[in-house]
Amino acid sequence: MKKHIITLAGDGIGPEIMNSAQALLKAAGEKYQHEFTTEAKDIGGIAIDKYNNPLPDETIEACEAADAILLGAVGGPKWADSSIRPEQGLLKIRKHFNLFANLRPVTIFDSLEAASPLKQEIVHGSDLMIVRELTGGLYFGEPSERRDGGQSVIDSLTYTHDEIERIVRTAFDTAMTRRKHLTSVDKANVLESSRMWREIVNTVGKEYPEVTVEHELVDAAAMKLITNPSYFDVIVTENLFGDILSDEASVITGSLGVLPSASLSENGLGLFEPIHGSAPDIAGENKANPIGMMLSVGMMFKYSFGLHEESAAIERAVNTVLKQGFKTPDLKIDGAETISTTEMTEKIISNL
Amino acid sequence: MKKHIITLAGDGIGPEIMNSAQALLKAAGEKYQHEFTTEAKDIGGIAIDKYNNPLPDETIEACEAADAILLGAVGGPKWADSSIRPEQGLLKIRKHFNLFANLRPVTIFDSLEAASPLKQEIVHGSDLMIVRELTGGLYFGEPSERRDGGQSVIDSLTYTHDEIERIVRTAFDTAMTRRKHLTSVDKANVLESSRMWREIVNTVGKEYPEVTVEHELVDAAAMKLITNPSYFDVIVTENLFGDILSDEASVITGSLGVLPSASLSENGLGLFEPIHGSAPDIAGENKANPIGMMLSVGMMFKYSFGLHEESAAIERAVNTVLKQGFKTPDLKIDGAETISTTEMTEKIISNL
Ligand SMILES: CC(C)[C@H](C(=O)O)[C@@H](O)C(=O)O
Ligand SMILES: CC(C)[C@H](C(=O)O)[C@@H](O)C(=O)O
Repeated sequence: MKKHIITLAGDGIGPEIMNSAQALLKAAGEKYQHEFTTEAKDIGGIAIDKYNNPLPDETIEACEAADAILLGAVGGPKWADSSIRPEQGLLKIRKHFNLFANLRPVTIFDSLEAASPLKQEIVHGSDLMIVRELTGGLYFGEPSERRDGGQSVIDSLTYTHDEIERIVRTAFDTAMTRRKHLTSVDKANVLESSRMWREIVNTVGKEYPEVTVEHELVDAAAMKLITNPSYFDVIVTENLFGDILSDEASVITGSLGVLPSASLSENGLGLFEPIHGSAPDIAGENKANPIGMMLSVGMMFKYSFGLHEESAAIERAVNTVLKQGFKTPDLKIDGAETISTTEMTEKIISNL
Repeated sequence: MKKHIITLAGDGIGPEIMNSAQALLKAAGEKYQHEFTTEAKDIGGIAIDKYNNPLPDETIEACEAADAILLGAVGGPKWADSSIRPEQGLLKIRKHFNLFANLRPVTIFDSLEAASPLKQEIVHGSDLMIVRELTGGLYFGEPSERRDGGQSVIDSLTYTHDEIERIVRTAFDTAMTRRKHLTSVDKANVLESSRMWREIVNTVGKEYPEVTVEHELVDAAAMKLITNPSYFDVIVTENLFGDILSDEASVITGSLGVLPSASLSENGLGLFEPIHGSAPDIAGENKANPIGMMLSVGMMFKYSFGLHEESAAIERAVNTVLKQGFKTPDLKIDGAETISTTEMTEKIISNL
């Protein structure tokens, strides 16, 4: 198989973990006889520095011609007070390529159970997938502006019926490949958009009689994610609720650093990125956890290229290295040996 | 002191825990020589059943003439599909009396540390106060409606400058009575309302040079609340973020059942309610945890009546009974004896 991939390393630890992804692509290509070509482009803070634009046209054009996009991380204190923000690059690329379906798996590797702030009996066996709507809601709704000379402000939570329906279908399809249990999260006791969301979930649900569907209010879901994470299989929710709940759920695994994500469009183009941020405090120190990025490559293999065996091999390799007792500094595992980004990358690759 | 209190028991376990509040008022009145008179009115589902109105005028009028309001809980599956929802009673009373400042303390009693799903070393010493804006944002913003014949939907997150400023001031004032550390939670990398919120926090902060102020994004805050709850002192945030984060934070204590809240207006009228819901599954079984309700009476003593000694006595009594090894069924404490709502109520009262 021949595939062309755009790499958007971005800011902070982005370039370091993107090196890990590059090394993994090379190794997996050799082992499984694929030709993966990559091309580096700019996004986020570095693109602001170079082009005064967090998502330059050149980056968009390159992505348009590619088979998939890998992204490191964007943002950092350097641009905190700038009028153009690095995150706008990320929001724009999601919107431009219509990457409406954000899949965020939260799987707890056995050897990470001890690293969780939750009791081991609570996290044991947790394996859930958050399906977050990524191109609608408060993130993109208009109007979003100051009014009355700065005396008031409005942001708008907007959705069309079709936007809700397509993410809900993605969630049902995802549930069909898993334990067939779907939890739709909303705030239907307050929001009109949530009431419409709930109706659409119920209507689409009729086409998936095998899937058990539940509705949970977002405040209750935020509790249950912690008190009973293994209860959940697939969670589907709107953009901002998904942002909050997926970060919260990441806590279960003991570190954001191990979690990947996929952002998919209807035409098959996907963007893959770890869910952690740019971690400017440790940038350049060879300390970043490459696992979230490397598992994102695995999600790219699976969701964009249909390479299931290759994807599973990456997960197995990560699991093996963790079981062997190695960790990066972000993971709190007693007795494990702390190694660097490059060492962790090499160990995972050598276990492919 | 003479005070007249409206009791709104509401639905589900509401009436049972309101009995606990009544018994506590009687005992505290006798012990500390106060005359507390109470008057029961309807709100929520029961008010829908009786008057087809979740907040009857009669209830509003009685509250207008009162010194404080106690509320049990509203809602339940019985009204899930009704066009008028019990929660509207709660939202309306908050708005009608301008109860903009929702104080939600999350304190972990020593004997509850073991009941938490979090590891004991993580929860130990947690003591935070969430100051949630309660009468603005997505809960009340207009427009909130279907459009294009049901093809799209909008909810509006609106705030005025004054609405933000008054809750921010409440939070700074609260921080001054505590450890002087304020975390303002927003989503300023996406929302215009959050950027305005942040500016106002910074401006008001200049008047409180002793308070250390930080801004945290809501997704990051949702993580940190679990990984490092004892980091926080006072958290201030808008209505929906506060709804999600306060329910999430309640997990720290092992049970929603022990947490009180105060909703305060500028003119001093306050409504006090446990943060748990109506728990219809255990209604009428004498199993509900009365602690959240009884501590809400304590908050009423402190915030509405200035009765600090009486308020502290309730907290001490709760702590004593938990230390003696008693619990209600919602608390998972090994070795503690499970007792009923009425028994727990009596024990707390006898330790006043
Ligand atoms: C950086 C930020 C705009 C982004 C979001 O809120 O979507 C991030 O938190 C994420 O979850 O990918
Ligand atoms: C019942 C509901 C409308 C309410 C809210 O969302 O404010 C509740 O969750 C709360 O936190 O008091």
